[in-house]
Amino acid sequence: MASEQQPAVVTCTAPVNIAVIKYWGKRDEELILPINSSLSVTLHQQQLKTTTTATISKDFTEDRIWLNGREEDVGQPRIQACLQEIRRLARKRRSDGAEDALPPRLSYKVHVASVNNFPTAAGLASSAAGFACLACALARVYGVEGDLSEVARRGSGSACRSLYGGFVEWQMGQRADGADSIAQQVAPESHWPELRILVLVVSAEKKLTGSTAGMQTSVETSALLRFRAEALVPARMAEMARCIRERDFQAFGQLTMKDSNQFHATCLDTFPPISYLNDTSRRVIHLVHRFNAHHGCTKVAYSFDAGPNAVIFTLADTVPEFVAAVQHNFPPEPNGDKFLQGLPVEPALLSDELKAALGTDPTPGGIRYIIATQVGPGPQVLDDPGAHLLGPDGLPKPAS
Amino acid sequence: MASEQQPAVVTCTAPVNIAVIKYWGKRDEELILPINSSLSVTLHQQQLKTTTTATISKDFTEDRIWLNGREEDVGQPRIQACLQEIRRLARKRRSDGAEDALPPRLSYKVHVASVNNFPTAAGLASSAAGFACLACALARVYGVEGDLSEVARRGSGSACRSLYGGFVEWQMGQRADGADSIAQQVAPESHWPELRILVLVVSAEKKLTGSTAGMQTSVETSALLRFRAEALVPARMAEMARCIRERDFQAFGQLTMKDSNQFHATCLDTFPPISYLNDTSRRVIHLVHRFNAHHGCTKVAYSFDAGPNAVIFTLADTVPEFVAAVQHNFPPEPNGDKFLQGLPVEPALLSDELKAALGTDPTPGGIRYIIATQVGPGPQVLDDPGAHLLGPDGLPKPAS
Repeated sequence: MASEQQPAVVTCTAPVNIAVIKYWGKRDEELILPINSSLSVTLHQQQLKTTTTATISKDFTEDRIWLNGREEDVGQPRIQACLQEIRRLARKRRSDGAEDALPPRLSYKVHVASVNNFPTAAGLASSAAGFACLACALARVYGVEGDLSEVARRGSGSACRSLYGGFVEWQMGQRADGADSIAQQVAPESHWPELRILVLVVSAEKKLTGSTAGMQTSVETSALLRFRAEALVPARMAEMARCIRERDFQAFGQLTMKDSNQFHATCLDTFPPISYLNDTSRRVIHLVHRFNAHHGCTKVAYSFDAGPNAVIFTLADTVPEFVAAVQHNFPPEPNGDKFLQGLPVEPALLSDELKAALGTDPTPGGIRYIIATQVGPGPQVLDDPGAHLLGPDGLPKPAS
Repeated sequence: MASEQQPAVVTCTAPVNIAVIKYWGKRDEELILPINSSLSVTLHQQQLKTTTTATISKDFTEDRIWLNGREEDVGQPRIQACLQEIRRLARKRRSDGAEDALPPRLSYKVHVASVNNFPTAAGLASSAAGFACLACALARVYGVEGDLSEVARRGSGSACRSLYGGFVEWQMGQRADGADSIAQQVAPESHWPELRILVLVVSAEKKLTGSTAGMQTSVETSALLRFRAEALVPARMAEMARCIRERDFQAFGQLTMKDSNQFHATCLDTFPPISYLNDTSRRVIHLVHRFNAHHGCTKVAYSFDAGPNAVIFTLADTVPEFVAAVQHNFPPEPNGDKFLQGLPVEPALLSDELKAALGTDPTPGGIRYIIATQVGPGPQVLDDPGAHLLGPDGLPKPAS
């Protein structure tokens, strides 16, 4: 990317990430600086990804953006923050290096198009993948090298964690300008090949509290959140990094569940209280604990973000039995969705002992479908010109 | 009660109480000493009460107990703890006073019968009323005077708060023997005559975690609970006492809701997590916040104990409109229960503005029925011999 001749059109993909030590609450609303560090697992883009094309031209008269085929207001503050940040970095990093004049392209307007390969309605946090992808595509067309944490973070805090594959920590940093609030990889995606992730998509009512408004209210009203951020998270970050380093699934799973629960506890301690978990979420929690109790060890772990969907962590050899347990407690109903999506899962029979241990009354249709995936790499650049979402005229191709 | 001639049969009634600063967690499991002080409102016995008869006789060969007409095992540890404590106090307080020989009745066996005037299935904490009533009845037949906190507390921690009417605090105390962990009245039932309480009985699945086991797990696993008990509750106790003293409903209602939410937050932070609130509970929470937002002030407040039922605090002039709002969001279904029970409630029409503000989709049958009540007095002794639940033979009367 050091070449003077930057491409005028770039297409990147970026992954979804799931925090196992949760981020909730900002100490700076504008710079999006968190009140605690967080740590996430990057999901594989084969199942869940955002694809973004950025193209610049001296002929464009304004910045424009299309999301999932619809033009959106490019003036949205978070999109503007990313654009301003990438142009600032382009000037700064350029001037830090050579003393030559700034290339004219830095003043060019940009067109951006972005699509997800998963339904937004699934309630999966698409903003992290989206802003990570935007940061990568903009960086390449404007010729910005190095860490993009600041750019992605300005779009959506957790987006900085989608800039790397494998296991990623977002260090909260101490500086007021946020320069040390950056993401970095703890371990690459190849580090723990047996780890699997199952996204259990729950049939849900519309979310009542968005995460941006929610976390602001939490910071303002929850004494438990402040205590968690200051007194508890630092030790949890260190312990989670150890679990990953040593591939200690027992401890990894338990801490993942505890941290998810504690995040939702601080939501409930918010005033007015925030509830992202619903009765189906709670049935999944109960199922996981019963499944583990039956086996006498932590074979599966749940994590919930700002919504009712469960993200399950487990090892490859447990997937068939746990999926069968989910199907047993949540008999699929015909809803137009294929129940098992993503990585293939071998069918398994449940033992009568396990069925008895699971015990609860079945809840038909509670889970709409399952996406089976694994740990994956960070953002990718697509070299195939056919992958571009924008045509030579800078407008979305008819197909996208 | 100073007379030497104690009655051989006594019948008492005792009230239910609802904590507005919650008790959750013991520092001593056997003595039932709490990790924080708590404060409650005593509900009126016209709507919710336990009635208990105790009778002693030199002819009884063993202690026996009947609950709601069924003989139960008198060897249950908590019943035994109450019996031992009352007999210990009878000896101690007797020997503290006169030096005369202990009367023979202290060695007599006791028969006890107890009934509630509300269905146990309603999920209302009947153990507090039950053990307070047991303590009062035993004290009278064995001739024990003075505070009965220690006796009631050994049966169920929160039972000591049902020993007084009005507004009652249970001081956690500091002593290892629990002698200073006692209940005392903050204000009598006459102090705030406009205060009303609505119990919204929610259609629920069976409770998964009992409160005794639940709070023990919370103490062992929740760092947020420890922080709450040590760092947050002391100031909340003082503030709640002020709200009551000054009849400041705004502040009383807000703190009541915050403390209920924080208690449930610590349940969720427990591992494995405990969830007493279900989707209907959360809809009630949402309804209350929307109702208050519409009015621009805190007109109603919710509190939830270890179950999904909502206890609503409000003032008399708000009851009709709020009950209409509940009926609007939870249209009653024919279920064999009268929807409105207890104090009479005037019908009210909802304005279109309020209906629009409530907004959520109706959930038919989510609330089974409402019990309207008010603040009430402490335990009562019934002088009418016809009220005794045990006959002259010491066995339950056929009627009970």
